[in-house]
Amino acid sequence: MGNNHLSKPAKGVALIIGAGDATGGEIAKRFARGGYTACMTRRNVDKLQPLIAEIQAQGGTAFGFGSDARKEEQVIELIEHIESNIGPIEVMVFNIGANVPCSILEETARKYFKIWEMACFSAFLTGREVAKRMVSRESGTIIFTGATAGVRGAAGFAAFAGAKHALRALAQSMARELGPRNIHVAHVVVDGAIDTDFIKDTFPDLYAKKAQDGILNPVHIAENYWHLSQQPRDAWTHELDLRPWMERW
Amino acid sequence: MGNNHLSKPAKGVALIIGAGDATGGEIAKRFARGGYTACMTRRNVDKLQPLIAEIQAQGGTAFGFGSDARKEEQVIELIEHIESNIGPIEVMVFNIGANVPCSILEETARKYFKIWEMACFSAFLTGREVAKRMVSRESGTIIFTGATAGVRGAAGFAAFAGAKHALRALAQSMARELGPRNIHVAHVVVDGAIDTDFIKDTFPDLYAKKAQDGILNPVHIAENYWHLSQQPRDAWTHELDLRPWMERW
Amino acid sequence: MGNNHLSKPAKGVALIIGAGDATGGEIAKRFARGGYTACMTRRNVDKLQPLIAEIQAQGGTAFGFGSDARKEEQVIELIEHIESNIGPIEVMVFNIGANVPCSILEETARKYFKIWEMACFSAFLTGREVAKRMVSRESGTIIFTGATAGVRGAAGFAAFAGAKHALRALAQSMARELGPRNIHVAHVVVDGAIDTDFIKDTFPDLYAKKAQDGILNPVHIAENYWHLSQQPRDAWTHELDLRPWMERW
Amino acid sequence: MGNNHLSKPAKGVALIIGAGDATGGEIAKRFARGGYTACMTRRNVDKLQPLIAEIQAQGGTAFGFGSDARKEEQVIELIEHIESNIGPIEVMVFNIGANVPCSILEETARKYFKIWEMACFSAFLTGREVAKRMVSRESGTIIFTGATAGVRGAAGFAAFAGAKHALRALAQSMARELGPRNIHVAHVVVDGAIDTDFIKDTFPDLYAKKAQDGILNPVHIAENYWHLSQQPRDAWTHELDLRPWMERW
Repeated sequence: MGNNHLSKPAKGVALIIGAGDATGGEIAKRFARGGYTACMTRRNVDKLQPLIAEIQAQGGTAFGFGSDARKEEQVIELIEHIESNIGPIEVMVFNIGANVPCSILEETARKYFKIWEMACFSAFLTGREVAKRMVSRESGTIIFTGATAGVRGAAGFAAFAGAKHALRALAQSMARELGPRNIHVAHVVVDGAIDTDFIKDTFPDLYAKKAQDGILNPVHIAENYWHLSQQPRDAWTHELDLRPWMERW
Repeated sequence: MGNNHLSKPAKGVALIIGAGDATGGEIAKRFARGGYTACMTRRNVDKLQPLIAEIQAQGGTAFGFGSDARKEEQVIELIEHIESNIGPIEVMVFNIGANVPCSILEETARKYFKIWEMACFSAFLTGREVAKRMVSRESGTIIFTGATAGVRGAAGFAAFAGAKHALRALAQSMARELGPRNIHVAHVVVDGAIDTDFIKDTFPDLYAKKAQDGILNPVHIAENYWHLSQQPRDAWTHELDLRPWMERW
Repeated sequence: MGNNHLSKPAKGVALIIGAGDATGGEIAKRFARGGYTACMTRRNVDKLQPLIAEIQAQGGTAFGFGSDARKEEQVIELIEHIESNIGPIEVMVFNIGANVPCSILEETARKYFKIWEMACFSAFLTGREVAKRMVSRESGTIIFTGATAGVRGAAGFAAFAGAKHALRALAQSMARELGPRNIHVAHVVVDGAIDTDFIKDTFPDLYAKKAQDGILNPVHIAENYWHLSQQPRDAWTHELDLRPWMERW
Repeated sequence: MGNNHLSKPAKGVALIIGAGDATGGEIAKRFARGGYTACMTRRNVDKLQPLIAEIQAQGGTAFGFGSDARKEEQVIELIEHIESNIGPIEVMVFNIGANVPCSILEETARKYFKIWEMACFSAFLTGREVAKRMVSRESGTIIFTGATAGVRGAAGFAAFAGAKHALRALAQSMARELGPRNIHVAHVVVDGAIDTDFIKDTFPDLYAKKAQDGILNPVHIAENYWHLSQQPRDAWTHELDLRPWMERW
């Protein structure tokens, strides 16, 4: 850990589950900049190295973990490790979930399950494990990254909307149970394309909107997560939406 | 009708997935009375015998199947069997799902999964398989039995609300995709205790409300499902709620 | 009133506020056919004559009233007259409201007010007056005709969406207050064009969908109102949507 | 900035409609602190003097106006005056609306109208007038203060819920129309008691929760309005809720 001040941050840990894409990475950086020790997970830990290096170069503290949030043992072990060796998890951001649209007529059981497992079951496992620690300290913030599909079904979205609806139900149920125990649980409805390599490569027409701020900048998403985490407890937000000015909704 | 009316029903098949409790049974009876061939499933087929006998005694046609709606092969086989040997499935009612409230802090991964598997994954499997047949005929009705937990999370309800939210997302996504193909998909929000043996035995105080119509009568629930199934296609309902007059909501 | 059976119907009065268009008229006919005495209002009573004649020709009982539902004195007088001279109002259907889309930038204060007055304030006045009578008898049904604009704002719909949202809030607030007093209050979300002369004359392209059941048939809307009014009180619906199978939503 | 900085503020005007209570005042102070010229209205301009003095003492710029937002001429004149003499309105916050719960059976037409006029019609008038100016500059932020009653009706809340639902419909309709013209329109659902003299005097039991942060601090509400106004346009929030950690919802 070293002997400089970075090893003893004023704040505890901000754990980002799924720091693989642009959004998770920017969230990690924002919390590191705000004084938290950023702990980040993705399945392949090697891919986290550039992010860790970037945070450290900015004077922040960051740790990366190869951890599959769908595996209960791995989740339990991850949380135990961080709490024992790094610090108390004060903020958790859950940021996993991907859509692969498909007609209901052709959706496979395997994919329907996988999409739920990734976007919802992982959130349950990580949320529960972190909540256990937070309630013992009566303090903490948990933020789940949702989507429009979490509030509205659509043709071709049965699997993703199912997973995201379930995620929202998880967030809302946890917020109602844990709020009175001083745990702030929030759900963010990201409504629009995000500036990622995936969008750039797969939907060039959509990506072209970037020139006029028509897709979400991960840096700005991160700023809203930061804002949520810093709200005094007399005025908590439990759900907010984020979308580009030109998005239809 | 002739003297072998059972083999040539005026209408096709109404398939009730989960006819184990009072509600599913009454729905089956209502559709049989309306001229459909009632096909009913539950895991233990023996328990369906009294229901089949009752429908037959009333002059209706009924078949029971031991089938686990969580198992894809069983679902595929069930639908194939009915379509090949009994008749076209014109109505499917999905009626499975049970809540076992639990703090998020103590919810097990196993139970969280099981509740979703039962209330949502089963609905996906059966809904998809039946929809495949219906779209080929460009006709059919699919009704999913939902709950208040499908529209609102609550303390202790993370698992059930997750499953029921996902079910609602399934219904809405299917309705939007299949409506234009003349398949009517509806979601019913049952908000209140139902007059079942389970409520009678487990929540006697709640059951006592029956004297003043404070719990839902399965016969009346069934009548609403019947109503939905008979709506002309220029005026379809995609979601309706059902609750006792004295229920708080 | 005369000495034949029509003057003493088995059921009481069904009052249709706004029987001017196709929908209100069909609802009146449906309740008359079901044994209620149909009382209908619109501003110009003369225009109700064909409807009254049609109901009477079918063996029903009907009365028409020229009454402006936006005027409190007229509403009070109307309800008093019906209750004193015709019979107890057992069902009220509120069916007024028209949209004239307009950019928010050009919407006039006068029109914004008028649209609210017609679609919402009238509903408040008539709903309140009828509710007073119903609570004294601890029985009754009140149905408000809503619209998609009642659940969702849209560009150009600030005035109409405002009025319809307020109407929905009225229905929901009344349902929650009066339900436990055995008054069934329901809100119907009509989502789509209705088969009326207005649509025929103004939106011929839309009207052309009629050939494939793409616009709502008032007879079928009426059947759903009837269904709501006949629900036993252990299983009341407080909101249902109605839309054509091919409608996007 | 020069020595007459009041005449040339770095930012434009933040107009707070209804700065009479604690919330509006804190919002005005927050925007003044952020560099905006705070323009504040309430019916009695004299009551704004302490607030103006406070903002000026902190180095900010503030103007007060006695203006009744329910009167179209006054609203038009107010906006014209500010735009001509003070500066372009870059932010408008609408903050008027009061609830006086009442059974639907006893609600008067006068009060039902007044509550709507105050909480909704005023918002329409001020929102429209300000929007006209903003679209000409293709820039601006409009925030409407809503309430739980804007998303849910309740017994005794027919009037207030109606007005707040209509306000939300206004916000949503304006957001959808004006978003693509670069005007950010947001709706804030304030869910809980606010730390005001009114609550202190009228609901002492509720006010007692203040000791444990159980009621909303206007300073913290204001911070969220500020946050909304500063969101880059690729990530706008159109609705956020604010409630104390211990609030039931």
